[in-house]
Amino acid sequence: MLRMTRHFIIDCDTAEDDIMSLFMLLRYGISVEGITIVEGNISFDQEVNNALWALEFIGKEIPVYPGSQRPLVKNYRTVENVHGKGGIGDKVVKPSKLKASNKHAVDAIIELADRYAGELEFLAISPLTNLALAYLKDKSLADKIKKVWIMGGTIYGRGNITPVAEYNIWVDPDAAKVIFSSGMDLTMVAWDLITNYTINDEEWDKIKSMNTKLSSFYIDIYAHYRNYAMTKQKMKGNPHPDLITTAIAIDSSVATKVEKQYVDIENCECLTRGMTVIDYLGIWNKEPNVNVVYEINKEKFISMLYNLLSWF
Amino acid sequence: MLRMTRHFIIDCDTAEDDIMSLFMLLRYGISVEGITIVEGNISFDQEVNNALWALEFIGKEIPVYPGSQRPLVKNYRTVENVHGKGGIGDKVVKPSKLKASNKHAVDAIIELADRYAGELEFLAISPLTNLALAYLKDKSLADKIKKVWIMGGTIYGRGNITPVAEYNIWVDPDAAKVIFSSGMDLTMVAWDLITNYTINDEEWDKIKSMNTKLSSFYIDIYAHYRNYAMTKQKMKGNPHPDLITTAIAIDSSVATKVEKQYVDIENCECLTRGMTVIDYLGIWNKEPNVNVVYEINKEKFISMLYNLLSWF
Amino acid sequence: MLRMTRHFIIDCDTAEDDIMSLFMLLRYGISVEGITIVEGNISFDQEVNNALWALEFIGKEIPVYPGSQRPLVKNYRTVENVHGKGGIGDKVVKPSKLKASNKHAVDAIIELADRYAGELEFLAISPLTNLALAYLKDKSLADKIKKVWIMGGTIYGRGNITPVAEYNIWVDPDAAKVIFSSGMDLTMVAWDLITNYTINDEEWDKIKSMNTKLSSFYIDIYAHYRNYAMTKQKMKGNPHPDLITTAIAIDSSVATKVEKQYVDIENCECLTRGMTVIDYLGIWNKEPNVNVVYEINKEKFISMLYNLLSWF
Amino acid sequence: MLRMTRHFIIDCDTAEDDIMSLFMLLRYGISVEGITIVEGNISFDQEVNNALWALEFIGKEIPVYPGSQRPLVKNYRTVENVHGKGGIGDKVVKPSKLKASNKHAVDAIIELADRYAGELEFLAISPLTNLALAYLKDKSLADKIKKVWIMGGTIYGRGNITPVAEYNIWVDPDAAKVIFSSGMDLTMVAWDLITNYTINDEEWDKIKSMNTKLSSFYIDIYAHYRNYAMTKQKMKGNPHPDLITTAIAIDSSVATKVEKQYVDIENCECLTRGMTVIDYLGIWNKEPNVNVVYEINKEKFISMLYNLLSWF
Repeated sequence: MLRMTRHFIIDCDTAEDDIMSLFMLLRYGISVEGITIVEGNISFDQEVNNALWALEFIGKEIPVYPGSQRPLVKNYRTVENVHGKGGIGDKVVKPSKLKASNKHAVDAIIELADRYAGELEFLAISPLTNLALAYLKDKSLADKIKKVWIMGGTIYGRGNITPVAEYNIWVDPDAAKVIFSSGMDLTMVAWDLITNYTINDEEWDKIKSMNTKLSSFYIDIYAHYRNYAMTKQKMKGNPHPDLITTAIAIDSSVATKVEKQYVDIENCECLTRGMTVIDYLGIWNKEPNVNVVYEINKEKFISMLYNLLSWF
Repeated sequence: MLRMTRHFIIDCDTAEDDIMSLFMLLRYGISVEGITIVEGNISFDQEVNNALWALEFIGKEIPVYPGSQRPLVKNYRTVENVHGKGGIGDKVVKPSKLKASNKHAVDAIIELADRYAGELEFLAISPLTNLALAYLKDKSLADKIKKVWIMGGTIYGRGNITPVAEYNIWVDPDAAKVIFSSGMDLTMVAWDLITNYTINDEEWDKIKSMNTKLSSFYIDIYAHYRNYAMTKQKMKGNPHPDLITTAIAIDSSVATKVEKQYVDIENCECLTRGMTVIDYLGIWNKEPNVNVVYEINKEKFISMLYNLLSWF
Repeated sequence: MLRMTRHFIIDCDTAEDDIMSLFMLLRYGISVEGITIVEGNISFDQEVNNALWALEFIGKEIPVYPGSQRPLVKNYRTVENVHGKGGIGDKVVKPSKLKASNKHAVDAIIELADRYAGELEFLAISPLTNLALAYLKDKSLADKIKKVWIMGGTIYGRGNITPVAEYNIWVDPDAAKVIFSSGMDLTMVAWDLITNYTINDEEWDKIKSMNTKLSSFYIDIYAHYRNYAMTKQKMKGNPHPDLITTAIAIDSSVATKVEKQYVDIENCECLTRGMTVIDYLGIWNKEPNVNVVYEINKEKFISMLYNLLSWF
Repeated sequence: MLRMTRHFIIDCDTAEDDIMSLFMLLRYGISVEGITIVEGNISFDQEVNNALWALEFIGKEIPVYPGSQRPLVKNYRTVENVHGKGGIGDKVVKPSKLKASNKHAVDAIIELADRYAGELEFLAISPLTNLALAYLKDKSLADKIKKVWIMGGTIYGRGNITPVAEYNIWVDPDAAKVIFSSGMDLTMVAWDLITNYTINDEEWDKIKSMNTKLSSFYIDIYAHYRNYAMTKQKMKGNPHPDLITTAIAIDSSVATKVEKQYVDIENCECLTRGMTVIDYLGIWNKEPNVNVVYEINKEKFISMLYNLLSWF
């Protein structure tokens, strides 16, 4: 059987879960055409460094395109408290050789969408500023990009950066509003969904005992995040917002319940800034615009994670 | 054992579930000191008429105090589509003899809070305009009112009048904001909690077969609402937002899971107007101000309902 | 010729200009039926004290009705920096005998509007909370109150508490919005109008040289405000926002240019909170609702002021 | 004396006054490096056509770069009622030969800012979307662009598209907010300033009688706008928002009173959307960021206009 190569851009505010998402794409044979970097978790420069350092770790050369260093309009803040000073814990890394591209992420997105028109998939595990800027410059992106996989928002109104807003959408609610109304084929994996599928103690120990290079790497870069999640966010393990989104992007059967619904973004500078408003009951009578994931097959996800970690 | 009489004000935008709530208070020996009427479900005059008509039905004389006919600041709309033209279906009733008091609800609330200082309980199954106006006039209410039982808001971000806002809070989010920050002892029963405890077909049929005067009355006044809920809101039966709140107010053990949390109200005129924002994780580091109900004992509630309907 | 007695309520957040406004009403034979106090310039209790102290100074007994101590919904701040710790400079005064009424301002307003239905005039040189609360309780006020004279807002977008908002409206923009859409007969005297009519050095010296008890009182209580206005607000003298409004209320010919226009209030919690939005060109096609004063006869105002100060 | 060539980009939502602004730049020897087109007055395609048609009329080839066809985030509307269906009255024109560039305005701006770093001036007689998008992509623009001349906003709170908002800023208040906080050297010519300097009947007749090709062109393309301004906006002649801004950009002595002040943009979706908030008194204590023009030398402007119209 012939399987067509899938072409992805992965958009990162590069912390631990972004890195593992990139690795999973590669493990599963996705052709990653570019890594675009956007403001978010930690300082922009460190996000770029982390992406290059991760590429050196895994021994791949994929262009890293620096993109927007700020939201379209509003202010935001980084969250080193969550991911550690370096985004992979408090260790601050640098690439030894690789350098970022001189091309801006916005141009890279537009060019790659031209090159792989109708095939390109965009994995947004990050605020949506880069994609919004590209779309604002070239609205034909809405037709050329096949699918946008978004880690972002909430389905039960339970956020992380505010009580009701998830970080990625909160950082740039204006960009999110632009993309959510763009007509692109969007799939959204919400924060308060993935918190149900954390890596528990048993799984963490199992990973530890795998003793591969990648499993040790995993343990190393997730330790800070795990600790934060379990102490500050009352979780039972470390969550995988980006990686679960990536797993669904790779194999859509990881999502076992998906509904196409109308979703809008609260972009007022108010209490609920950055909230994803889902019209569950069709009260507003608008055309559904987002595939909202409501359930995942944890076993399948875990086996994909183990498969990744046993790679080398 | 001596049980102290409990003194209540019940604040109504009188539709079917408000009426049954009043009846349940009476069935359980609560001393209802006044019925205050506020803008909400249907036209204000019909709300007053319904309260008086219900008193005539049950043969009690309790003062009905007309209150605010509009929210503090914003516009709102009535929902005859939900409750029928008359609020108890499309039938429009009038009292034959009883008349409303000339005293304004705000004055009644303040006077009753003085008379029963430290004992008065306020059952708000309605927008919070009356209570807010009373409090704005006399902030000592915060000390004098023992408990405020509120039907309103959401705990999972799933509303009824907008995708994320519950009707009572949405009608007057400013009043809600005033009350939620008043320091009163508040208990909140959310819309998206009570939708889990609807009257299913079996229970509906059982009530039909009770053949008491009250059970027939129940079937008669809830038929419109039941139909609306099951066709437009995808529910499996008719919900009891007000009555469940009332049951909890009567017997707090009906609520089996309650957490005291910080709750604020989105009162911007924006997408999320009227949303209750609950700080589940203490992100904002504010003093908890509301007892939020997360689970109820349906059996206990149903037995209280049956007990009521078998009264006469 | 028979001149009907005019009946006024004067609503104060009692600083120096409020006191002089009260005195001017009395000097011109207005029957002041009540002084209602509202949150604003300084601490509420001091506002009450100032009103009573002023009555003792002038030897009149007029009921002082304490009203709302806070805006309907939003937060506000007092401005002792402008008017001095005591509102009449840094001196903090107390009445020696007089006491405030036990009746709430809201009730007083409603009762007086009943008693003088169709005749009562309301002089609001203060945030509009009291009047809004009274109106929210009894909308027939809109018919019973003959005229509302408002010191508030701007006509050229130049405020004092923010670049575009005038203090009285800013303190309670929600109350202002309620009143501006109430249908009452409103006349608005804007902050950035009255700044054109300040008491210059020559006039100040002339008042000094009058050597009446009242002129000395004037110099004493305005010294702080004058200094503030001339150093912090770049004015050429001390302004008379309240007193000019009062003069216009007494003799409408003091206003030499008035246009009836549609005015709405920005009550968002945003950059422009509390701004008066005047539809000069009829862009919104709404019914004019406010008599907006655009020019005053300074000579006439000054002669009224001198007349007042020469009283005793 | 050696005069350095000045390099401009002119950003247009091409109606009559944009065209004449382009011509005036050329008449005064400015090197116009590009014409960028942005959403605004009329349909985007017609704006592009008008620019090309105007170039054919004047016999110049300057690249026309199509830019953003929509605001960053919000909705807007075109104003054919003001400028006529074709933007130069109801006549809808097309270029006979010239074509727009394939390069996007955002790229053109960034490239020209590189080429003429420290010298390039940007004449924005239009919503600020193109410049904002360029800046969001490359923040070094803030250093490379020498001056930005903006037709936009108000100084007395008197707008045209809403009572308090001027059209250009209103269309994309988010873009304006981005640019106003960018650190660029901004000069702002407000709508409610230029309405004081309209072309009166005498001047209109004088232009008519000039009988040059350009004066006839002027009469032809301004007739619709003149009629609109005099009937709907109560003006005494046709205004020149863009052309006065252009005249000031060419010869800064046309502006006879300029103050550097802190200006922010109201970008809430509220009553005052798009208002320019000027902190006249330094209440907010922020660094001044805009040269705000408060007075112009009408004679000088008129003589520049006559000079232009007598060109050929």
